[in-house]
Amino acid sequence: MAGNSIGQLFRVTTFGESHGIALGCIVDGMPPGLALSEDDIQPDLDRRKPGTSKYTTPRREEDKVQILSGVFDGKTTGTSIGMIIKNTDQRSQDYGEIKDRFRPGHADFTYQQKYGLRDYRGGGRSSARETVMRVAAGAIAKKYLREYFGIEVRGYLSQIGEIKIDPQVVADVSKIDWAKVNSNPFFCPDESAVEKFDELIRELKKAGNSIGAKLTIVAEHVPVGLGEPVFDRLDADLAHALMGINAVKAVEIGDGFAVVEQKGTEHRDEMTPEGFCSNHAGGILGGISSGQPIIATIALKPTSSITVVGRSVNLNNEPVDVITKGRHDPCVGIRAVPIAEAMMAIVLLDHLLRFKAQCK
Amino acid sequence: MAGNSIGQLFRVTTFGESHGIALGCIVDGMPPGLALSEDDIQPDLDRRKPGTSKYTTPRREEDKVQILSGVFDGKTTGTSIGMIIKNTDQRSQDYGEIKDRFRPGHADFTYQQKYGLRDYRGGGRSSARETVMRVAAGAIAKKYLREYFGIEVRGYLSQIGEIKIDPQVVADVSKIDWAKVNSNPFFCPDESAVEKFDELIRELKKAGNSIGAKLTIVAEHVPVGLGEPVFDRLDADLAHALMGINAVKAVEIGDGFAVVEQKGTEHRDEMTPEGFCSNHAGGILGGISSGQPIIATIALKPTSSITVVGRSVNLNNEPVDVITKGRHDPCVGIRAVPIAEAMMAIVLLDHLLRFKAQCK
Amino acid sequence: MAGNSIGQLFRVTTFGESHGIALGCIVDGMPPGLALSEDDIQPDLDRRKPGTSKYTTPRREEDKVQILSGVFDGKTTGTSIGMIIKNTDQRSQDYGEIKDRFRPGHADFTYQQKYGLRDYRGGGRSSARETVMRVAAGAIAKKYLREYFGIEVRGYLSQIGEIKIDPQVVADVSKIDWAKVNSNPFFCPDESAVEKFDELIRELKKAGNSIGAKLTIVAEHVPVGLGEPVFDRLDADLAHALMGINAVKAVEIGDGFAVVEQKGTEHRDEMTPEGFCSNHAGGILGGISSGQPIIATIALKPTSSITVVGRSVNLNNEPVDVITKGRHDPCVGIRAVPIAEAMMAIVLLDHLLRFKAQCK
Amino acid sequence: MAGNSIGQLFRVTTFGESHGIALGCIVDGMPPGLALSEDDIQPDLDRRKPGTSKYTTPRREEDKVQILSGVFDGKTTGTSIGMIIKNTDQRSQDYGEIKDRFRPGHADFTYQQKYGLRDYRGGGRSSARETVMRVAAGAIAKKYLREYFGIEVRGYLSQIGEIKIDPQVVADVSKIDWAKVNSNPFFCPDESAVEKFDELIRELKKAGNSIGAKLTIVAEHVPVGLGEPVFDRLDADLAHALMGINAVKAVEIGDGFAVVEQKGTEHRDEMTPEGFCSNHAGGILGGISSGQPIIATIALKPTSSITVVGRSVNLNNEPVDVITKGRHDPCVGIRAVPIAEAMMAIVLLDHLLRFKAQCK
Repeated sequence: MAGNSIGQLFRVTTFGESHGIALGCIVDGMPPGLALSEDDIQPDLDRRKPGTSKYTTPRREEDKVQILSGVFDGKTTGTSIGMIIKNTDQRSQDYGEIKDRFRPGHADFTYQQKYGLRDYRGGGRSSARETVMRVAAGAIAKKYLREYFGIEVRGYLSQIGEIKIDPQVVADVSKIDWAKVNSNPFFCPDESAVEKFDELIRELKKAGNSIGAKLTIVAEHVPVGLGEPVFDRLDADLAHALMGINAVKAVEIGDGFAVVEQKGTEHRDEMTPEGFCSNHAGGILGGISSGQPIIATIALKPTSSITVVGRSVNLNNEPVDVITKGRHDPCVGIRAVPIAEAMMAIVLLDHLLRFKAQCK
Repeated sequence: MAGNSIGQLFRVTTFGESHGIALGCIVDGMPPGLALSEDDIQPDLDRRKPGTSKYTTPRREEDKVQILSGVFDGKTTGTSIGMIIKNTDQRSQDYGEIKDRFRPGHADFTYQQKYGLRDYRGGGRSSARETVMRVAAGAIAKKYLREYFGIEVRGYLSQIGEIKIDPQVVADVSKIDWAKVNSNPFFCPDESAVEKFDELIRELKKAGNSIGAKLTIVAEHVPVGLGEPVFDRLDADLAHALMGINAVKAVEIGDGFAVVEQKGTEHRDEMTPEGFCSNHAGGILGGISSGQPIIATIALKPTSSITVVGRSVNLNNEPVDVITKGRHDPCVGIRAVPIAEAMMAIVLLDHLLRFKAQCK
Repeated sequence: MAGNSIGQLFRVTTFGESHGIALGCIVDGMPPGLALSEDDIQPDLDRRKPGTSKYTTPRREEDKVQILSGVFDGKTTGTSIGMIIKNTDQRSQDYGEIKDRFRPGHADFTYQQKYGLRDYRGGGRSSARETVMRVAAGAIAKKYLREYFGIEVRGYLSQIGEIKIDPQVVADVSKIDWAKVNSNPFFCPDESAVEKFDELIRELKKAGNSIGAKLTIVAEHVPVGLGEPVFDRLDADLAHALMGINAVKAVEIGDGFAVVEQKGTEHRDEMTPEGFCSNHAGGILGGISSGQPIIATIALKPTSSITVVGRSVNLNNEPVDVITKGRHDPCVGIRAVPIAEAMMAIVLLDHLLRFKAQCK
Repeated sequence: MAGNSIGQLFRVTTFGESHGIALGCIVDGMPPGLALSEDDIQPDLDRRKPGTSKYTTPRREEDKVQILSGVFDGKTTGTSIGMIIKNTDQRSQDYGEIKDRFRPGHADFTYQQKYGLRDYRGGGRSSARETVMRVAAGAIAKKYLREYFGIEVRGYLSQIGEIKIDPQVVADVSKIDWAKVNSNPFFCPDESAVEKFDELIRELKKAGNSIGAKLTIVAEHVPVGLGEPVFDRLDADLAHALMGINAVKAVEIGDGFAVVEQKGTEHRDEMTPEGFCSNHAGGILGGISSGQPIIATIALKPTSSITVVGRSVNLNNEPVDVITKGRHDPCVGIRAVPIAEAMMAIVLLDHLLRFKAQCK
């Protein structure tokens, strides 16, 4: 309960369901003086927006954000920023038939059991539609981090199903061509993989099936010192924020699971007066940013909204078959890049403010 | 800041450094009426304790916990529980030479930069010594979960370096032989792997090197309904708690990174009136427990405390060589099993109380 | 920072300025299953609304609340409830002349100094306009408390300036005629005082001056056990919530300041098998509700928005004269009754949920 | 629940009962670099200590504080500070007879009802003994405020029963003779009242009765800008902290209840280029510090621990007579001065850090 907030000093609280009247959020703790308008937020919303490419759901959402408070004469005032996005395309009739049955792999069952009732239209609050406000809040955090600290938070997709990008393309994060990443609908830094992704997605659409994906988010120019011992480590808070994205099932910092097979001599990042010699740690040591790029990788499951029939039960625990019609992405991981960027930015800004409070 | 607490309703706050006078914690929000004494806590502390096997550090710590408050006539009173463990073996002379230099892979550099000064003895607050109080607090949570809800939280080690246990041994979590897991110093459910682990660790000790490890934590009999939308999902809070353990670099829930290559038809757990047909989700759907076993896997890096010389810098940013003498585990992952169990138990109890508050 | 929220489990977060586009709030932690619509909220908004009587500001605000989320099929779903009220009457031209000068007694100076800029229109975020969302959130809490626990939270005005009601009328809170209280624009339980209040207010309007007021809020049928040791006592949290209302300068629980002159034999509420013999404590012992009516009294200062010229300074710290034109209540305390009821209800529901979590 | 903490960034969490083994606290969020030892804390503990004058309880408590962590080489390290005070004088036999009966005016009844069991020895957690750790934590806050910001937080007693000090003595807070205040056991700035207080207390002791008191706490040199809209106003947080002190029943900021009879022209503090012309607001405007002295006044009830027999009930709700023997202050308000100073200092430091985070 009271689980709809994230952050301590930079705190984002959201509301809204997939097919409700509107979604919204309150951004609290934003420092005063940042030039801000809807135009700073809309581009990230558009990057996340479904229906913008043939690879994602054809559902049309306007996703026009409106700032309702906290900005005056074009600048943040330091008071809470209210934002709203109206739902314009709510074809809830599509969902009538799942009213009393649980889509396998979805939150229908757990919400029903937890609350005793649920807004079944499009998954209600459990829908990924909800992430639209995270992106809006994250866009504000990103702008502040960039303008006041030169920090850039950006992400790319590195794998869909068994198709992986060439690891050499991203071996040195400082040399990733972000313009290229953002010029294709897959947020893919490796041109040679785009066509394969395209083919895979087309096949899946035809089959009414879906597939998982892997993303990496990178924050550059983060100062040394962000993160608190013992529980609010920067990596712990990033794991919280990233695992909290719909469909995410795994989070790595730096080398992640590869550390299991590493020796101490391999993993530890040695230092010289010129700086660190490597970045196996992913920019975080002892839970505190080291000044190196912060690197996090996440895995997103294949959406369970597919047209292949699945076994499930209804409210009376009787066996039923379920097909999720609606309009759904075959790979929800693709649209997750701006969402994951937003979550990392929110965590970084929160920790920047905490750092300022105690140590400056 | 104020980062030394975890949990909302069941809240654990800790203090203490590796070589300070004592470590301690306050457990706040514990329901009244649980029979509790130091004897309920000591066994888990002993499982974590170094020096109990030849595979871990020979450092001798008594680790005798004392309950100072919150328990009366053998029962919890509902008020805050203070606990303390005195440091009895503080050979801080071992650490004199790292006073003004940064051990590569450690938090020395980031603490120094963040705070402008640091307790360099044994890593101070950043030492894994700190986890002793997490285990103490977790033991209380585990007892309550077991006695009031029948929930069992247990873990095992599945990989050290390239040596993996037979996956068949743990394929059905309800059939894991936990007595066997706890009867060998590796917390290993696969007898055939124990000897290989033993050999590997002996080699590493000789070489003065270290190695990573992989653990899995399982909670059984967790009721449906724990976890809050949107940010305080159960998986998000578990990721936070587990990534916050020293040396952890990755967290998976259920199938974890394997989902990247799964199709929707493979991943989604179908249901019949008899229950779920599989548990790819790891017991959490839409961030809320489904009633299935909750399964989390983590990766721990090789400790950077090794006797192989490494390049680093000192406080003046001059190049220095660093050897970490002290007495250290070649594989910190081994001792992390009780720590990870504790963290999962703390998160589960916190969410149980939140669930009771809103939904019962 | 992040100061726009109140409550732990039942948590209200607000946004919006006096002359912005809209005000809104998010109510998080509301238990599922409560029948709820705008019709449950509007009556309290109307009680607070200015322009409804000749005694308060003629400013016309529609104050039509809209629920945007968290309610489905007429019931709360357990997810976050978003609400919005649009500002329809924003005569901001009235405020142009205070753009660069500080109204004495207002927050203009402190906001400017704190943030370096401010939304000067009508006080921006510091305006009592902001309390409209507290009333909306409080109306939800009040309904839940009433329907699920039979708790009633109601308030009355007992003094304006030197004019006091007859203390006998409210000596026994269980016998207060609440219908009478709500039938006159002063929320006054003593008919004989209404005319005097009326006369006083008319004089003040003529003089362009303002006056303070004293209110009492009573919660009946509160169960024993709400409130947490040590810092989150029920009385401490009530003091926080009530002192946080615009213009409030003092809070009493039970006998309040009268205790200074009481002896132990007078103050302590003796008990018999039939219950407490008196209620000097105001329903709270050791920070925990005792089952008796909870009684809090607050003092509200005279508004500083008056047409009598006052000395102040401008942004350049040059002496200026200030007259606050606008349309303002001569006694802001009158409209504060529903606001204070809302704040008490929010605190009580929050503690009810905390009590359920730990002790039931 | 989880109510044993106060503060957001500077956060104090306490444990311990009146007759337990020890009391302790964790101070989290303390900035690094402050010179600190037990010698900085002990003087305030001694000011609070019972048994130091003939006016307070003869119970002998050593109250020797020990710092267990968070300080290295004589300076705070930025990590959590653990402190402990052992209970040396635990004559719990005095309390045997209240084991199954509720002392009127005490928390015995509410704790029993809330938790179903209680540590009845000396009131357990509800005892004012608990405040010793607040004073310890507050002493750290006070030192930091003084050394880094020049802020002084000090208090005095202004009334016991009907005996009041001469208001002229404290009319100008900048001219209070604090050395004089701290040189008499009543913390009284008016020498002429000391003898009358002395006589009153001696009479009450003889009669086995008790009396209330009134205190004022003043913070000087607080910078402009502390306090957050809307709910975490500085005055709201002060009210929370002060009302949370045992026996406090009322809190005023600035003119407090006197505002009820003031007109706007009287109350508003006009400004000139030289500063404010008065301080009716008590140093807080719109919930934010104005740079003027912050002034709060509180009322403490007469202790219910008296030897005059009182009617009550036992665990079976049967009528019983209760006499509280033990050793108790006839006026708990006297010892509350250092406690209230501590609470104000904790709130101010917390808000200072929040201000730094967002606005500097």
